[in-house]
Amino acid sequence: MVKSLEITGNYVTILDQTLLPHEERYIEIHTCREMIDAIRRMSIRGAPALGIAATAAAWLAVQEFTGSSNFQGYFEQQLQAIEDSRPTAVNLFTAIAHIRKTIADIDSPAEAESRILDCLRALIRYEINACVTMGENGAKLFQHNKLNILTICNTGSLATVGIGTALGVIRSIPRHLIDTVFALETRPKLQGARLTMWELEKSGIPAKLITDGMVADVMSRFRIAACIVGADRIAANGDTANKIGTFSLAVQAQHFKIPFYVAAPETTFDRSLTDGSGINIEQRNSSEVTSFAGTTSATENCRVYNPAFDVTPAGLITAIITDKEVYRAPYSF
Amino acid sequence: MVKSLEITGNYVTILDQTLLPHEERYIEIHTCREMIDAIRRMSIRGAPALGIAATAAAWLAVQEFTGSSNFQGYFEQQLQAIEDSRPTAVNLFTAIAHIRKTIADIDSPAEAESRILDCLRALIRYEINACVTMGENGAKLFQHNKLNILTICNTGSLATVGIGTALGVIRSIPRHLIDTVFALETRPKLQGARLTMWELEKSGIPAKLITDGMVADVMSRFRIAACIVGADRIAANGDTANKIGTFSLAVQAQHFKIPFYVAAPETTFDRSLTDGSGINIEQRNSSEVTSFAGTTSATENCRVYNPAFDVTPAGLITAIITDKEVYRAPYSF
Repeated sequence: MVKSLEITGNYVTILDQTLLPHEERYIEIHTCREMIDAIRRMSIRGAPALGIAATAAAWLAVQEFTGSSNFQGYFEQQLQAIEDSRPTAVNLFTAIAHIRKTIADIDSPAEAESRILDCLRALIRYEINACVTMGENGAKLFQHNKLNILTICNTGSLATVGIGTALGVIRSIPRHLIDTVFALETRPKLQGARLTMWELEKSGIPAKLITDGMVADVMSRFRIAACIVGADRIAANGDTANKIGTFSLAVQAQHFKIPFYVAAPETTFDRSLTDGSGINIEQRNSSEVTSFAGTTSATENCRVYNPAFDVTPAGLITAIITDKEVYRAPYSF
Repeated sequence: MVKSLEITGNYVTILDQTLLPHEERYIEIHTCREMIDAIRRMSIRGAPALGIAATAAAWLAVQEFTGSSNFQGYFEQQLQAIEDSRPTAVNLFTAIAHIRKTIADIDSPAEAESRILDCLRALIRYEINACVTMGENGAKLFQHNKLNILTICNTGSLATVGIGTALGVIRSIPRHLIDTVFALETRPKLQGARLTMWELEKSGIPAKLITDGMVADVMSRFRIAACIVGADRIAANGDTANKIGTFSLAVQAQHFKIPFYVAAPETTFDRSLTDGSGINIEQRNSSEVTSFAGTTSATENCRVYNPAFDVTPAGLITAIITDKEVYRAPYSF
């Protein structure tokens, strides 16, 4: 299994996901700033992986402290900088909030470093196990054979540190039951084409790549057992923020009466939000849309709308598969 | 207005649409084979333009005849080669059928050449006028201001020889009524990004480019007045083949209760088909999905499903705008 992030001595190593599938390059991250930059440019991405990356960034920040006083002031600034990296995935904020609480009364950097490393190791263990349990919970929903499944973005090992969320469920379904996993390429960043197809190929799971506009055609021509997607933040009522295109997929699943499952660890719930309207949606650079893997596809002055996520209303979600259980509507978290 | 095809002496000149928006290069087409190749690689595309390109190809084929006998045998072979270029747009087949009928009793290549040139000129005139009338018919449907409109692929001057079909309707709406035209980039060939945004910018119509997966988000966040799309073939019951992604757009329009209009000249009807199930959908090379402009986005062995068109069921279409009238369901052509 590919490792999206690993602790290596007193720093971390991540697989640079911007270079996949062409190059499998691991990069060393030695400072908090380097991790923030890696998160921003999406060298590491995916909600569970972002929680871990944020914790790792905090751990690196502690090690960088060279002052003799006001450790707490310094550290709080670093935590806020990490929180400013990307706004939508709740795991990042939950991780930072947990660290803030853990070291609230600690003034010794050495003590803080040790505590945060414990947090990091515990979170990695938790997410690995959560993927396995989620996979088991989800796989039980699939008993028939010749399964065709639709998925979007990347929710595999690259998005977690385990077998994945939605892709973890797919991996947990007995291989012989699967006919084809249709992976949406997931413009603009093409995580489906670049990352999911790469993971599926490595896992020997039969898959086909489609463009995001092919959904209705595929749903009408093939017998689709389910859509399974990940999540970046789930509000208390079940409204789910996930990669842009997920909402479109859910609308179409409803039209074709296809079950639509969200798979996410319990860490993806944001119980502070009554519904999805409060979710902060990251708007990203227009060049992501006006170009394709570095090749420009539009005029220079082209105006663009580029939300990185959308919010699927709970009413379109058949079930939410977590490491704890399979929740069904009406949701109340 | 940009010209997708023009008669130049005894040959034709086309704008090579594969190079847009970066380069506006006109290429001379001297032979039937050159035109077939241009159609195949989509240097010229769009259903009405394909009808004209096919007629032009036939005209060039006649001029290439060097034999002294069996002109009809030679010519029929050429017509079949033209019909083999791309299967879905009916305009191409209607155009060839019309030529076949026109020269059925003619054995003189010179006489045939003159007749087919007449056909070509007449078809160009017809399509230019059809765009104008279609535009007028369609524009009447829009009375309010601050209109947001969604469109897919390219249906403008590049897809026709006039102001366009769906884009012709958009162009015919008084400019001050339009807030934003949202153009779907339309993977895999990106006609929306490369061609439609380029045309809209030239026309000074405010527009924004979105990826194909952003539809539900846009429909839920903005007040969308309508979706307007073109057509490659419309069956007798109103089922409409159009660029892949159109069916997805229609499903979502229905979900959000947004009017979904098809704009096409009467030449796009295929009354020989009772419904859309008989429409021959072109499957194109997988490299279109695994790459763009030579930049790959997936692994070498990546399996792909790549239909160039989908069929939107008549039940999802609010009205079909032609150069004759605005048809409403239930359709019977």
